[in-house]
Amino acid sequence: MDATRSRISEEELSLIDRYWRAANYLSVGQIYLMDNPLLRKPLRPEHIKPRLLGHWGTTPGLNFIYAHLNRIIKARDVDVVYICGPGHGGPGMVANTYLEGTYSEIYPDVPENADGMRRLFKQFSFPGGIPSHAAPETPGSINEGGELGYSLVHAFGAIFDNPGLVAACVVGDGEAETGALATSWHSIKFLNPARDGAVLPILHLNGYKIANPTLLARSSDNDLRHLFSGYGYEPIFIEGSDPHLMHPQMAAILDEAFDKISAIQAAARGRSVPSGVPRWPMIVLRSPKGWTGPKEVDGKKVEGFWRAHQVPVSNCRTDEGHRGILEDWMRSYDPDDLFDADGRLKQELRALAPAGDRRMGATPFANGGRLRQELVVPPIADFAVEIGERGSQQIGSTSVLGNYLAEVVKLNAEASNFRIFGPDETDSNRLGAVFEQTDRVWMQGIEAYDVHLAHDGRVMEVLSEHLCQGWLEGYLLTGRHGLLSCYEAFIHIVDSMFNQHAKWLKVSRELEWRQSISSLNYLLTSHVWRQDHNGFSHQDPGFVDLVANKKADIVRIYLPPDANSLLWVGDHCLKTYDRINVIVAGKQPESQYLSIEEAVAHCEAGIGIWDWASFEDDTIAPDLVMACAGDVPTMETLAAVMILHEAIPSLKIRTVNIVDLLALQDPDQHPHGLDDAEFDRIFTPDKPVIFAYHGYPYLIHRLTYRRSNHDNIHVRGFIEEGTTTTPFDMTVINELDRYHLALEAIARVKGLAEQEPDLIERLRSKLDEHAAYVREHGEDLPGVRDWRWMR
Amino acid sequence: MDATRSRISEEELSLIDRYWRAANYLSVGQIYLMDNPLLRKPLRPEHIKPRLLGHWGTTPGLNFIYAHLNRIIKARDVDVVYICGPGHGGPGMVANTYLEGTYSEIYPDVPENADGMRRLFKQFSFPGGIPSHAAPETPGSINEGGELGYSLVHAFGAIFDNPGLVAACVVGDGEAETGALATSWHSIKFLNPARDGAVLPILHLNGYKIANPTLLARSSDNDLRHLFSGYGYEPIFIEGSDPHLMHPQMAAILDEAFDKISAIQAAARGRSVPSGVPRWPMIVLRSPKGWTGPKEVDGKKVEGFWRAHQVPVSNCRTDEGHRGILEDWMRSYDPDDLFDADGRLKQELRALAPAGDRRMGATPFANGGRLRQELVVPPIADFAVEIGERGSQQIGSTSVLGNYLAEVVKLNAEASNFRIFGPDETDSNRLGAVFEQTDRVWMQGIEAYDVHLAHDGRVMEVLSEHLCQGWLEGYLLTGRHGLLSCYEAFIHIVDSMFNQHAKWLKVSRELEWRQSISSLNYLLTSHVWRQDHNGFSHQDPGFVDLVANKKADIVRIYLPPDANSLLWVGDHCLKTYDRINVIVAGKQPESQYLSIEEAVAHCEAGIGIWDWASFEDDTIAPDLVMACAGDVPTMETLAAVMILHEAIPSLKIRTVNIVDLLALQDPDQHPHGLDDAEFDRIFTPDKPVIFAYHGYPYLIHRLTYRRSNHDNIHVRGFIEEGTTTTPFDMTVINELDRYHLALEAIARVKGLAEQEPDLIERLRSKLDEHAAYVREHGEDLPGVRDWRWMR
Repeated sequence: MDATRSRISEEELSLIDRYWRAANYLSVGQIYLMDNPLLRKPLRPEHIKPRLLGHWGTTPGLNFIYAHLNRIIKARDVDVVYICGPGHGGPGMVANTYLEGTYSEIYPDVPENADGMRRLFKQFSFPGGIPSHAAPETPGSINEGGELGYSLVHAFGAIFDNPGLVAACVVGDGEAETGALATSWHSIKFLNPARDGAVLPILHLNGYKIANPTLLARSSDNDLRHLFSGYGYEPIFIEGSDPHLMHPQMAAILDEAFDKISAIQAAARGRSVPSGVPRWPMIVLRSPKGWTGPKEVDGKKVEGFWRAHQVPVSNCRTDEGHRGILEDWMRSYDPDDLFDADGRLKQELRALAPAGDRRMGATPFANGGRLRQELVVPPIADFAVEIGERGSQQIGSTSVLGNYLAEVVKLNAEASNFRIFGPDETDSNRLGAVFEQTDRVWMQGIEAYDVHLAHDGRVMEVLSEHLCQGWLEGYLLTGRHGLLSCYEAFIHIVDSMFNQHAKWLKVSRELEWRQSISSLNYLLTSHVWRQDHNGFSHQDPGFVDLVANKKADIVRIYLPPDANSLLWVGDHCLKTYDRINVIVAGKQPESQYLSIEEAVAHCEAGIGIWDWASFEDDTIAPDLVMACAGDVPTMETLAAVMILHEAIPSLKIRTVNIVDLLALQDPDQHPHGLDDAEFDRIFTPDKPVIFAYHGYPYLIHRLTYRRSNHDNIHVRGFIEEGTTTTPFDMTVINELDRYHLALEAIARVKGLAEQEPDLIERLRSKLDEHAAYVREHGEDLPGVRDWRWMR
Repeated sequence: MDATRSRISEEELSLIDRYWRAANYLSVGQIYLMDNPLLRKPLRPEHIKPRLLGHWGTTPGLNFIYAHLNRIIKARDVDVVYICGPGHGGPGMVANTYLEGTYSEIYPDVPENADGMRRLFKQFSFPGGIPSHAAPETPGSINEGGELGYSLVHAFGAIFDNPGLVAACVVGDGEAETGALATSWHSIKFLNPARDGAVLPILHLNGYKIANPTLLARSSDNDLRHLFSGYGYEPIFIEGSDPHLMHPQMAAILDEAFDKISAIQAAARGRSVPSGVPRWPMIVLRSPKGWTGPKEVDGKKVEGFWRAHQVPVSNCRTDEGHRGILEDWMRSYDPDDLFDADGRLKQELRALAPAGDRRMGATPFANGGRLRQELVVPPIADFAVEIGERGSQQIGSTSVLGNYLAEVVKLNAEASNFRIFGPDETDSNRLGAVFEQTDRVWMQGIEAYDVHLAHDGRVMEVLSEHLCQGWLEGYLLTGRHGLLSCYEAFIHIVDSMFNQHAKWLKVSRELEWRQSISSLNYLLTSHVWRQDHNGFSHQDPGFVDLVANKKADIVRIYLPPDANSLLWVGDHCLKTYDRINVIVAGKQPESQYLSIEEAVAHCEAGIGIWDWASFEDDTIAPDLVMACAGDVPTMETLAAVMILHEAIPSLKIRTVNIVDLLALQDPDQHPHGLDDAEFDRIFTPDKPVIFAYHGYPYLIHRLTYRRSNHDNIHVRGFIEEGTTTTPFDMTVINELDRYHLALEAIARVKGLAEQEPDLIERLRSKLDEHAAYVREHGEDLPGVRDWRWMR
């Protein structure tokens, strides 16, 4: 280490210290000031913002790391993306990107002079300004950090298939207590140093959360050394509060860490097959919370304690003493030593930042759309199912999509920009065809009898939805493509990550400089209707309800009824950008209805009347609309239509299928929404609509409440009745099966119930017969679930 | 260890082995058989279930642990609850509780004889039978385990304040990859050995998930030793597959572990102040997946590989070879050596299980309602706010609730059965008054300058919503009481845990033998309208949408408008059982409207006309209903009512406030639902209703779509427009502020828009004035948010 340390001169370290002070000065200024940015006048109340909103505590540490990374980037000419786990440290990220010039390039109304600095300060956490966190608005950021826990998993997602990139990931010690973060450390076991870049985690122990110490900061170095060795890392420690001692240490250990990374990569890239998981370096940095800020305020400890978390000294407008503390604090950084007469960072300090795209605020890896190449996809017709007579074949839809995905893997193998993610379920979800083209990535030991494990695999499986989601987010945010397949019920585990990604996309789309990234695609399978073997805990279709709350531009929900329609939907979603697409499709063998041409036409429309499954004539309105969305509801609806038609041939029945769920909304609520005339044309203005829906029925009401025929829409779906039973029985206990649907139709068409008492009786007794049989024999009554379309 | 091992005789170990074989036999039988339970006839196709649904892989290990725990319980006369992380191992839990007699006591239709065994087998994972997982139906279970990740946190929740209890928690190596589990290991840092019981984690490394190896199983013992030492444990290893070697080892290390636990407890309980976090023991058990099952099927490796995960040999009905494998496998346990002529476990084996409530299937700690004592609560009137003139005081509602909670802490201090949980936010959420009665529990080092940290604290704070939720669930499931306060946006992190707990409650309520447990109470504060300083990432009111999908009996959603109503709601929720109560209330100073008497009356009704805020007479219907739910919407609605009344004194305005949100539903959808007549009386059958709602507006439509006046209900709420801005500006950008509400009212009352062009102009210019001011000055236009009720 001494050899390494000697590389850096005292003079260089002194410049770094000044650079750090400049960043700290700008950070404090953003939190407090709306005028007098360079303190060239005495500080007066009106210079201070009326509402002080920001987080100082974590910021000086973030600035310290940023300054030292700048040196490393220049010294080694590497691409580094700075993942700021403590998103609260927004002022630091803004300050640094301003110092390096990126900020003013992106936001020319905040130039590098005194007036620009005034604007920089005022806009922070100010109405009409910028958020207090490292947000999409912040150059160089791909991690918001307001909801803690995802920095490290984003960092790994960013460096997969980016062999030249290092993600320097600052993990706050608060964030480190979250579940997502605690398991993210395992990600090195999926990192192939031969083809991927590197993550350098910097665990920043500043000791406190909002009002508590942190668990890891109060752990001994010995325990921490064991913990991170146990995860597979080689931890490097640095601790202190005296900048003059800390700068040379930090420079030295960063050199040490980057040397180790280079050595690991060189070794792996020198051989054909790297072996095992290398001991990647990670840094444990102990520095005081609110470092260099006020030591005490009103007699209470601030620096090095949780009182430094947000605004350390708060009444600066009204309390002269507080204002004095603030002024002394800001002047302690000696702004005149840092900024020239125009208010621009002095030349010798400007020279410390890297140039062009090497600047961490300017790196295209944090604006992934700049790097994004279109995904190459094959024609879906090549994978289409020949359906023959409708309903004559039982085919699992996801296995058909699996064939397509295998080809996508193949076509993009060279570009290395497509991965499939899932919590140990790729095969279980019947996407196993992809294993003809690739394997699961696995860096730990591989046994002779293991199946489809390899260092070069492009399928990422781990039993953590958090990791799957977070890796994919990081992968997309750096300009690549991917798909996450998951059991439908357990995608709720990442509800909150979905929320945050949707928010990220919403804001990013409003920023012209942020280039479009590929959509986040979910394939939710092993869904509520076919979790008969796992039972109630595995039965929850509510994720789409959460999704439907988001901004319409951002989200799409698709419920393809069969294999060819899933092909169209899957292919379509992979080609979109800046969205979150949710596809719900079963994996079990099911009836097939649409030829590929029909599927394309139907899915492009998103919703449509299935003429072939309707019994009406063009001259008059039907008596009844049977609508369905989702594969199992479609099957039961078609069966109900046949029951009704065979029993009452005179009944005019229209069958409607919905693939693109949000087409049900008004066009002013969703861009895919049908206009009222078209809605009325499809659903009629006044006839009963029996709507069989995949999920919780309320969602359909919520989407259609404005429609003129809404009072006649009767929805059946999952009513939270789940258990271990047969597939057909699942529909029965939730009253979504063909018999319940037919009974509902009879009840809703005026006069029909009076006219068809025998039919009602027959349907009811069929249900009784089923119930008795299934409980005795453990399987469905023979024939009860059969279906083949006959016209 | 030798000394310890010598305690157990060869003979006893041989009995334990037979007991284990009996449990394995019953487990396989449940997965496969519907008849011929004791194999007293050759196995024929019709004895085998038509659908084979269950998980074998984890089960023999679970049975192994269960048998050895039985010995420990008897030897040491301790209470042990068995937390079965691999919930998939349902057959094992059922088998063991059957062997010990608990199962037949609870379910007399499954007696301890051959016919009972036949029923036991058939019902498993069978329509009308029991689930395949360790579910509420399973005696002794408090952890479903279908959604992996929560076993360890439940175990800790169970033993807090239960000093005599040991939770033996089996963590599967799949589950160990989840985020929630990865951070759960830290829970020992909140465990006070002087007053709490102990958790004995048993990390069961059987090597594989569904289709992959596991990360921890492929880690070296050295890495594992470091990892768990780093978390603070003392790991004890056991590995092998030969039962004759494994039994004595397991007996010895369990003795070792229980000795260590006793020593830690004795030391802590012998002094007044235990110091630091003791090194608790944990066990790492490596045994083959599908242990004792078929080694190979169709030439492919099964035992010790992931193919043993579910049903190792699958075509037993149709394939004679497969059936032969199954029969050989089952006969390998030698059922005649285990069960007597009647099919009952032989006497010498029966003697191995503990007696009565010491049996792990019978322990009241796994049926917490048996132990539950009513929470002692003070009269809420003692904490009521004197409101004076309506709106004249600005008081933070949660701080008032905090005073009440402090008293609850005090009154139940001796019973030690009430805790408050939160992710580092108790003080930030203004519940700080509780720190006058108790502290935060903290077992790591405490510095002189730390505030309210103590080993005996009853407030549990950690920066992990997963831990807070999971601890509370475990605490409630073992018969105690609690409250979780959380930032509204981040409660989504535990959406999926909420789902699973709701499912648990739904099923438990259907089981007569499961006694009622206290409700899970959420206080969601720092809500969407007052996260102006943290911005968009912290603004999400969607949790209640998820909640509203659950079974009506289980969930309640309360939106108290002020402090006295929050007092009533908080007190009410703490007294309920078998529910999940969600309370949404802001922490910032706000106007107060209701005296305590008014609050009680209003909250008991759940919804009501506020006469004092209405301008109508009894003789005719109002022109307009202004409805509101939530504190900020209530404030803006009242202000809008005043604007309208002052400008148009002749306008008949009714003000309605909703506290109990689900009262809006039909009574057939929710027990609190208003009947249609009452709904129409309150909302009128045909007048415009301007509804200002706290969250996403769609929910109100979903709840009211069946009401006759639904077409006239115009909802405003959060429309996903968030940022860092002033509180009033947040309402403006989401069009929920007083001016937008008044404008909407004018637009909806027939003829009013034509009549009041000047008023419209005035309101619009007020909005413009606000927008310009707030962006210039960073605070709200003076007076814009003022409000005091004048009549």
